[in-house]
Amino acid sequence: MRSHVGDAADNWIAAIGDIYPEFAKVNVEFAFGELYRRDIVDDKTSELCAAADLTVQGFALPELKVHVKGALNTGSSREEILEIVTQMIAYCGFPAAPNALLAVKEVFDELYACE
Amino acid sequence: MRSHVGDAADNWIAAIGDIYPEFAKVNVEFAFGELYRRDIVDDKTSELCAAADLTVQGFALPELKVHVKGALNTGSSREEILEIVTQMIAYCGFPAAPNALLAVKEVFDELYACE
Amino acid sequence: MRSHVGDAADNWIAAIGDIYPEFAKVNVEFAFGELYRRDIVDDKTSELCAAADLTVQGFALPELKVHVKGALNTGSSREEILEIVTQMIAYCGFPAAPNALLAVKEVFDELYACE
Amino acid sequence: MRSHVGDAADNWIAAIGDIYPEFAKVNVEFAFGELYRRDIVDDKTSELCAAADLTVQGFALPELKVHVKGALNTGSSREEILEIVTQMIAYCGFPAAPNALLAVKEVFDELYACE
Amino acid sequence: MRSHVGDAADNWIAAIGDIYPEFAKVNVEFAFGELYRRDIVDDKTSELCAAADLTVQGFALPELKVHVKGALNTGSSREEILEIVTQMIAYCGFPAAPNALLAVKEVFDELYACE
Amino acid sequence: MRSHVGDAADNWIAAIGDIYPEFAKVNVEFAFGELYRRDIVDDKTSELCAAADLTVQGFALPELKVHVKGALNTGSSREEILEIVTQMIAYCGFPAAPNALLAVKEVFDELYACE
Repeated sequence: MRSHVGDAADNWIAAIGDIYPEFAKVNVEFAFGELYRRDIVDDKTSELCAAADLTVQGFALPELKVHVKGALNTGSSREEILEIVTQMIAYCGFPAAPNALLAVKEVFDELYACE
Repeated sequence: MRSHVGDAADNWIAAIGDIYPEFAKVNVEFAFGELYRRDIVDDKTSELCAAADLTVQGFALPELKVHVKGALNTGSSREEILEIVTQMIAYCGFPAAPNALLAVKEVFDELYACE
Repeated sequence: MRSHVGDAADNWIAAIGDIYPEFAKVNVEFAFGELYRRDIVDDKTSELCAAADLTVQGFALPELKVHVKGALNTGSSREEILEIVTQMIAYCGFPAAPNALLAVKEVFDELYACE
Repeated sequence: MRSHVGDAADNWIAAIGDIYPEFAKVNVEFAFGELYRRDIVDDKTSELCAAADLTVQGFALPELKVHVKGALNTGSSREEILEIVTQMIAYCGFPAAPNALLAVKEVFDELYACE
Repeated sequence: MRSHVGDAADNWIAAIGDIYPEFAKVNVEFAFGELYRRDIVDDKTSELCAAADLTVQGFALPELKVHVKGALNTGSSREEILEIVTQMIAYCGFPAAPNALLAVKEVFDELYACE
Repeated sequence: MRSHVGDAADNWIAAIGDIYPEFAKVNVEFAFGELYRRDIVDDKTSELCAAADLTVQGFALPELKVHVKGALNTGSSREEILEIVTQMIAYCGFPAAPNALLAVKEVFDELYACE
């Protein structure tokens, strides 16, 4: 999980584990131990697909922000991430996509504020 | 649109245009004329992201089948498509993902029946 | 309920009531007895809003077909219904809207087959 | 409604009724007067099912918090509520479930802060 | 877009365009240039349908607030908007509808605070 | 998984495994090996919560039918299942709930046709 989303992983799991350790255990073991352990799709593509889904789901902005970091960590450029969110307009329309765009901007602002 | 999803494009647009030409016009002009005209993300990644989203949305199996063809046409292997659908379990749980898997199988059966 | 959707009301309620009479009772009493008893919004607008929502929800095609009849019964033209479904592309993207368009066509075919 | 969710009922209805009294009237009369008046399923199970649904829907965190109180008021332990939210991972994946977990924690913190 | 939602249009597009100009371009050109350019459905009905959809989608409160202004600008009364949101209970249940009601109230408070 | 849903488990896993064995492996190991292995919530309540969620999600009718069998196998009466689906009207409105009711009826017809 750290190799995908970096330090965000530890913060996320610590927050979840503080509430219910069983949930945190499942989150790490299942999502990263089982689902992402195969090498068929490269990590960059997996993370862009995750960002795409979380855009479309509309209510998943905290998780989207984790996977925007995941996309950056696995080699996507900022423009690729913005482009994928924009392409999602075709699949979720305008209510969900701009909310995602604002969440992406929050991550960029946090990471690149001094540029 | 043809470069993405092949012959499926013409069938889809003909069916839609027969009902309401304005809808078909928007479908082609907007989705493929505007959203997919930039070169920032390669077509293979775009189509896998589309397949991922349509898996998660749950009710979008006819469109998923169009984009499974799109993924194959833009260079994804069958195993990559199956893997992306399986990874989506993390984002949509078990109700939506197996339905998507069955839709993917229908496309593979249609295209590769004689193998 | 009959004043909105016509004969489709009786068929729907009979099918539901055969499974669980409590459900049918709630369906009539609540949806039509309580929610639609006020005169603030005219019936035509209410039925177009219903058709719009059921388009966006994606999985609600049987109910959409009931409310397409409701829209026709309360004074909408066929073109107005097609236009509302098309406008919904902005709110739900392309997966849900074309499925709705196909459901609308089924109702039109059923009602106007001889024209 | 008070027997299910306790004092939270009055606050909720007062806030809604201040905006549109018709909405508050429907909320009490329909949801609690009609849907929950039968004795076929016990209140504890009903409230856990409500918490489960609101977890899966993803965007319904204010309502989830009302029904977490409802679950506690009708005899569920804190661990049972955490367990049901965790089981929902199977049905909604990781985007919706952790957000629900955080909302549950807010209710527990509010109610049990001094323990 | 200005004729629908007024000044809210400029603020929205400026915020979006600051993040990714392509997204803002698509938002204006497609949603308002293509989808809303025909005269088949009047603007008042279109905006009420938009408000109805954004109520049902649950996670789209920022966009709902834009279209509540759109509904007011195109001739709907406050009571008509409240009534449409209330009718949506039939299509989305109680989790999404009260959240929408609270968002509508925020717009009314902002616009009519001095009344 | 067999203890929850009975023979339906084997059919489901065989169908999924035929398409992509990794998916079937995850389905059994994760959903039943990890999520349902704790004893905090009894199986009957878990299965009713599952049926409730799959009702609300709207597009998950094949999975709902598996868990209706699961609910019957873990001690729920037919009337309890019908009641839970009916209560879900409060959380998902009328589009999703009647579709679920029809799916429940299909399971009852299959299992109890000769009564």
